[in-house]
Amino acid sequence: MLSKSQSKRITSLGQKKYRIKEQAFVAEGVKVIQELLDSTFKLDGLWVEEEAAFAKALSAQNITFETVTAQELKKVTFLSTSQTALAIFKIPAAESKKREGLTLVLDDVRDPGNLGTIIRLCDWFGITELVCSKQTVDCYNPKVVQATMGSLTRVQISYEDLNAYLASEKRPVYGTFMDGEDIYKSVLPKEAILVMGNEANGISAEIESLVTNRLGIPRFGPQQATESLNVATATAICLSEFRRSSLVY
Amino acid sequence: MLSKSQSKRITSLGQKKYRIKEQAFVAEGVKVIQELLDSTFKLDGLWVEEEAAFAKALSAQNITFETVTAQELKKVTFLSTSQTALAIFKIPAAESKKREGLTLVLDDVRDPGNLGTIIRLCDWFGITELVCSKQTVDCYNPKVVQATMGSLTRVQISYEDLNAYLASEKRPVYGTFMDGEDIYKSVLPKEAILVMGNEANGISAEIESLVTNRLGIPRFGPQQATESLNVATATAICLSEFRRSSLVY
Repeated sequence: MLSKSQSKRITSLGQKKYRIKEQAFVAEGVKVIQELLDSTFKLDGLWVEEEAAFAKALSAQNITFETVTAQELKKVTFLSTSQTALAIFKIPAAESKKREGLTLVLDDVRDPGNLGTIIRLCDWFGITELVCSKQTVDCYNPKVVQATMGSLTRVQISYEDLNAYLASEKRPVYGTFMDGEDIYKSVLPKEAILVMGNEANGISAEIESLVTNRLGIPRFGPQQATESLNVATATAICLSEFRRSSLVY
Repeated sequence: MLSKSQSKRITSLGQKKYRIKEQAFVAEGVKVIQELLDSTFKLDGLWVEEEAAFAKALSAQNITFETVTAQELKKVTFLSTSQTALAIFKIPAAESKKREGLTLVLDDVRDPGNLGTIIRLCDWFGITELVCSKQTVDCYNPKVVQATMGSLTRVQISYEDLNAYLASEKRPVYGTFMDGEDIYKSVLPKEAILVMGNEANGISAEIESLVTNRLGIPRFGPQQATESLNVATATAICLSEFRRSSLVY
């Protein structure tokens, strides 16, 4: 059963201020919860539908949980379709930045689905460090947690003043622009920072002035009328190119 | 004002069967509607908030519309945030397939956001032909229309029996698999078919047997625990590689 105070706590964690206050966040769904359980993240509450296969799997792992009804989960879910399990995990302490290899920087990405997809891309391409502007959507937002599909456990994410962060960096700073240099013809280094911008406005003027290398993804076809790529798909193409380049050169 | 019968018609077009029956679909938001107005798509109803800047722009274009309140639009919107304009357009007659260049084939992509993003990618990369399995989400679903950001007007989309379509094709059929050949090391032809699979299950066994060239996107980093890429980001990387390859070879 989900008590009134438990429901209230879960609901409050939908808001960033309560996540910061409690240093905790909500994860939903078997896959995401299992990935978090398998990581160093600390569990702080777990509710599972009694009849769910996951309940058996958890018992086999000696993990304590409470059983609830589908109806109870439906009342507190942050997703459009409620899952068979919901958990609260503690937010881990921030690790110090490594400042090496390829770091991805996000300048005000606002959509939770986009951030989740980008975290999953970082995981795939071995980008262990993701630095977000303070205006970027919180990575512990329940919809972001869901969209990462567990990749959250393998990417170090921090929120910084990007001006100060980039100004203190020695690695070259790459950014994508409509008029940038053809990314397919660029020799991309292993040690670099890649900045991706906001969904509607791209990279802000302030951050643009700190970009040392302007890249562009070529458009194809006769019409060339598409205004822009979605930020997650543009990030996919750029990370793919950085990694391919590191294999070739 | 939005009459009761107009509201009812808009709502009914949220369902595929009514879209097929009426050969019409709903588009929301200034950007998407303007792109459709600028194309060969035929307008079949347009409602705009009286105070919206778009109302002036439409008058300047001599386009007829009805004014409505934000409240009225909120009642009929299919999006989580209602826009300042909503339109009905006619579904254009299917054009015959060209069977040349690079064609993208989707084997049961179910998420509207993913399909919309993939249509936008096709537009960017000059892929004029997109062939979807009958189980793929309808491209005239209001959420897909929204996610395409107007690219719908520049990509020819058809729904086919993929078995029959692929069996009748002479071009090589590429698909991505976890154990496929490194896409960065593959010489990719200009004349080809690329198949992308379902979000949860990838390419079905039936279609897999018709794939002639198995590709894989390499994973990086020490952990290699990410299970898969999102289908839209994987499509972005594959289309980018096909186009890059066509420039190099």
